[in-house]
Amino acid sequence: MHEIGFIRDLAIVMIVAGATTILFHRLRQPVLLGYILAGVLIGPHTPGVLVADPRTINDISNLGVVLLMFTLGLEFSIRKLREVGIGVLVVAVAEVGVMLWIGYGLGEAFGWKGRDALFLGGIMALSSTMVATRTLSESGLGALPFARLVIGLLVAEDMLTIVILTLLTAVAIGGSVEASTAFTLIGHLGLFVVAGMIIGLLLVPRLVDYVAGFGRDEVLLVSTLGLCFGASLLAAWMGFSVALGAFLVGSVVAEARSSEKVMHLIEPLRDMFAALFFVAIGLKIDPAMLVQYAVPALAIAAVVMTGKTVICSLGMFAIGHDPRTAVRAGVSMAQIGEFSFVIATLGLSLGAVSDFIYPVAVAVSVLCMAISPYLVRSADGLVNGMRRIAPSPMRLLVTSYSGWLENLRPVNENAVIAAMLRRLLMHIAINVMLVVTLFVIGAYVNAHNWAWFSMFGLTRDARHTVIWAAALFLSLPLLIAVYRKAEALGMLLAELGIRESYAGAYTRTIRGVLARLIPLATLFVLAVLVSALGSTILPPRGVALSLAAAGVLVAVVLWRGLVRVHARLQAALRDTIAKE
Amino acid sequence: MHEIGFIRDLAIVMIVAGATTILFHRLRQPVLLGYILAGVLIGPHTPGVLVADPRTINDISNLGVVLLMFTLGLEFSIRKLREVGIGVLVVAVAEVGVMLWIGYGLGEAFGWKGRDALFLGGIMALSSTMVATRTLSESGLGALPFARLVIGLLVAEDMLTIVILTLLTAVAIGGSVEASTAFTLIGHLGLFVVAGMIIGLLLVPRLVDYVAGFGRDEVLLVSTLGLCFGASLLAAWMGFSVALGAFLVGSVVAEARSSEKVMHLIEPLRDMFAALFFVAIGLKIDPAMLVQYAVPALAIAAVVMTGKTVICSLGMFAIGHDPRTAVRAGVSMAQIGEFSFVIATLGLSLGAVSDFIYPVAVAVSVLCMAISPYLVRSADGLVNGMRRIAPSPMRLLVTSYSGWLENLRPVNENAVIAAMLRRLLMHIAINVMLVVTLFVIGAYVNAHNWAWFSMFGLTRDARHTVIWAAALFLSLPLLIAVYRKAEALGMLLAELGIRESYAGAYTRTIRGVLARLIPLATLFVLAVLVSALGSTILPPRGVALSLAAAGVLVAVVLWRGLVRVHARLQAALRDTIAKE
Repeated sequence: MHEIGFIRDLAIVMIVAGATTILFHRLRQPVLLGYILAGVLIGPHTPGVLVADPRTINDISNLGVVLLMFTLGLEFSIRKLREVGIGVLVVAVAEVGVMLWIGYGLGEAFGWKGRDALFLGGIMALSSTMVATRTLSESGLGALPFARLVIGLLVAEDMLTIVILTLLTAVAIGGSVEASTAFTLIGHLGLFVVAGMIIGLLLVPRLVDYVAGFGRDEVLLVSTLGLCFGASLLAAWMGFSVALGAFLVGSVVAEARSSEKVMHLIEPLRDMFAALFFVAIGLKIDPAMLVQYAVPALAIAAVVMTGKTVICSLGMFAIGHDPRTAVRAGVSMAQIGEFSFVIATLGLSLGAVSDFIYPVAVAVSVLCMAISPYLVRSADGLVNGMRRIAPSPMRLLVTSYSGWLENLRPVNENAVIAAMLRRLLMHIAINVMLVVTLFVIGAYVNAHNWAWFSMFGLTRDARHTVIWAAALFLSLPLLIAVYRKAEALGMLLAELGIRESYAGAYTRTIRGVLARLIPLATLFVLAVLVSALGSTILPPRGVALSLAAAGVLVAVVLWRGLVRVHARLQAALRDTIAKE
Repeated sequence: MHEIGFIRDLAIVMIVAGATTILFHRLRQPVLLGYILAGVLIGPHTPGVLVADPRTINDISNLGVVLLMFTLGLEFSIRKLREVGIGVLVVAVAEVGVMLWIGYGLGEAFGWKGRDALFLGGIMALSSTMVATRTLSESGLGALPFARLVIGLLVAEDMLTIVILTLLTAVAIGGSVEASTAFTLIGHLGLFVVAGMIIGLLLVPRLVDYVAGFGRDEVLLVSTLGLCFGASLLAAWMGFSVALGAFLVGSVVAEARSSEKVMHLIEPLRDMFAALFFVAIGLKIDPAMLVQYAVPALAIAAVVMTGKTVICSLGMFAIGHDPRTAVRAGVSMAQIGEFSFVIATLGLSLGAVSDFIYPVAVAVSVLCMAISPYLVRSADGLVNGMRRIAPSPMRLLVTSYSGWLENLRPVNENAVIAAMLRRLLMHIAINVMLVVTLFVIGAYVNAHNWAWFSMFGLTRDARHTVIWAAALFLSLPLLIAVYRKAEALGMLLAELGIRESYAGAYTRTIRGVLARLIPLATLFVLAVLVSALGSTILPPRGVALSLAAAGVLVAVVLWRGLVRVHARLQAALRDTIAKE
């Protein structure tokens, strides 16, 4: 009766989770904490063995990660990231980077091996979105200005999570922490993310809205789940983590008009599997091991809480927020949570880290979660205390820094030109990235699926020609767009760089040359890049040259049409992102 | 990388389910059908092996049964069953009974062994709530009067499902189809259902409303799931099916004021797991086996569709509906679906039936589901056709039957008295059932958990005394209620039965005697019943008699208090059921 055995285990987990959620809600403590403790209580390591074989529970609790990341993606969106503001973004990057570095150092100080130390850094780097937002809404402070900063930091960290997850996966599989591997990997990752996002943005929100138009929840839910798990699978196949795929497709679905409806349908699933996930974390914990590693766990928890509070508070102050707001935001970030579990699970399941990392991560998170609500409530006391203690020169410094920052805001006209420059450069970057993606996909197809081609009786050279030609002709609208944007950039720079007061009569000529030079240089760089990237699929020289010539010819003849195709693609993309 | 393997399988299932749900919605075909076909397509028996190891998928698809039955319970409620009306109830019982019998006969005619034939009967007996309601709402006929009849039939069948599930479980485990076993089992089942419902009604809706008052969906969802799986587990432990437990607790939660909110939260879970469940059904099917059993499958499908249509139509006509409404209701019931799978899964997982039963059940359901929408649309044509063909005497018979039925409605005063009698008898029956339950629980405690008692150093006699006394004193309010209701019954019957015109001067005396006699006789019957039921826990004679005497004394002294306790219990129960 294996069947009943599984339902028995699941029933026990759900009963305990249900009781816990009521109890911890009444105690005004984070429910996550309760789930984990309940898991330890009913786990195989404690006397009252209730769930003896957590294998299947563990299997389906992994769905919790996928659904968790998907809903985080749904809440994250490009629009929100743009609203976060560059300042908060910098603070988030600084905070995550410094915590990663501190964690690595701490691990080495404990005498752990390199990979364990690196995973410890990852575990310490990312704050818990679930705990932070829950604490905010429960403390009733969600409407204050600092809450927006915290949400901004969390959104920015969500993005960094992806980077860290991917890096650690690569390290775990490859076993090396070499810089070159890391950079190659980040390159691949960037391509995957950008290509995935752009293709996704063009297709997914339309599909979701189309299905939502049926007006049947079941159809919308099941097809969204198909998208979610499909993207996770795709990410896993490409060598990234399932969490990454789920997060990306979530952030793409977030741009659909019916994304709120989707959120509404997915939330109960997320809540159920999140409960399972956190109870399953507890199930894996042997309390005896916790006692053994109590000292490092306490030390790490102390470092996490002070480190995150200090870095975030200082960062927020540095970008111009008043000390009270800065400290409030800082203490709100002072915990780790679900991402730490995801990272620890990753390390464990890939066999990359020592066994003790997992319980240590759990212990640290539990400590932080338990203390977090009290810490948030004591933020104002902290600020007042510091004010009393601080010597008066320091207080003067604080005030004058704020005043100085106020004077730094960019002046009107310059701000407009800077925005124009930024937009042109961004457009060029995105289009170049897409061209590169097309050729990399071509190389990928060439490397992996040559069985298809031999089926049609193509030789190696013919195969290369077909793939290369396809990539080239599909790139045409993008290349033309790059050329046009580069032209605009050249004109703008010429206007700005060559003032009439300096160049006198030659102003026009010099400006004209500069305006031509920049697009031509861009195209040259692009050609080099493409032939380097496409080197594995380059057809024989003569064929390549004649294809390139044909490409140029087509571009010139169909210029208007290709411009229109590109404009339509761009408009579709912008519509999806910019819809309110 | 077992973990990825599982997510891979699940992802494939969800992607296929997502595509299927969109496609079949567009084709205006039941989505269930699509899920099953998709499952066959990606299953291990077809060339394009996608899901090779469906074990874990199968495990979690079983959650689909639990959640399906729970939501069916949520939609079913005592109030709804009472609204169904006695006529529809009788039709449902007749239909399910006859189909069970036809199925058994058909199985024997095929030369199958007894248990296979019985399971075939079970598979053919129950219509598909999901397909029928979906067809109604999609055909746009949901507002017509026959739709209410169909819903009524489905609600009544839901109740009968429980009976059939339990019977078949017992047959599968016990291996016998003996009448005595069946009756004992139905007795146990009745006790479990009634006791569970009453205790559940007193506690569960209050708990659910309390938790709903927190205003946090996550807490409400997780604790409701705890209840749902907890009840399933309890039912499994008592020897019934998990489906029964889930259904019962669902129908109890349905009485909570926040039951709609719960439904809202559970629905996405149900939809996801139902999709998994139906795809998993397809995964188990080997198309080769279908070909082998094509003839019986076609025959059974034909019998199901004609049988159900004819029985339901005739039944509906017999209880006084016009032929058009009756036939429409009949064709709407002419399919089998989810319950048939539940029953086939039950037989398969308990190893009670031959291997071919499962694919045959699936094939029949698929055929019925595919034909059902067309059948419903052709109902009116069917009626018109029959009208043209029918000879005129038959048409006359039909008309006169309707007229005769119209004259049979009970007259006003009699109807009021009949209602009073019915209510008194029902109250007595419920209270007697509760007393019996208390003693049976006592016997159960005595039989199973004697370790507790020996821990306290109790002898066998002392144990019996404690349990028997507890059952007796807990029964006191119920016994008093039975006595009082019996008294009222006696007075009513005396008033009705002894007319002054017959008894003359002795009317009063005879009425007085009758009014006393009935409660006393009831108490005597009750005493016999209790000592028979409690025979395994009866203390030594002397102790028992003095306890009984003490009971009578307590009853007399605390009469008012005990009446009040009972009244409060009853009011709590009635409030829960009668709240709008």
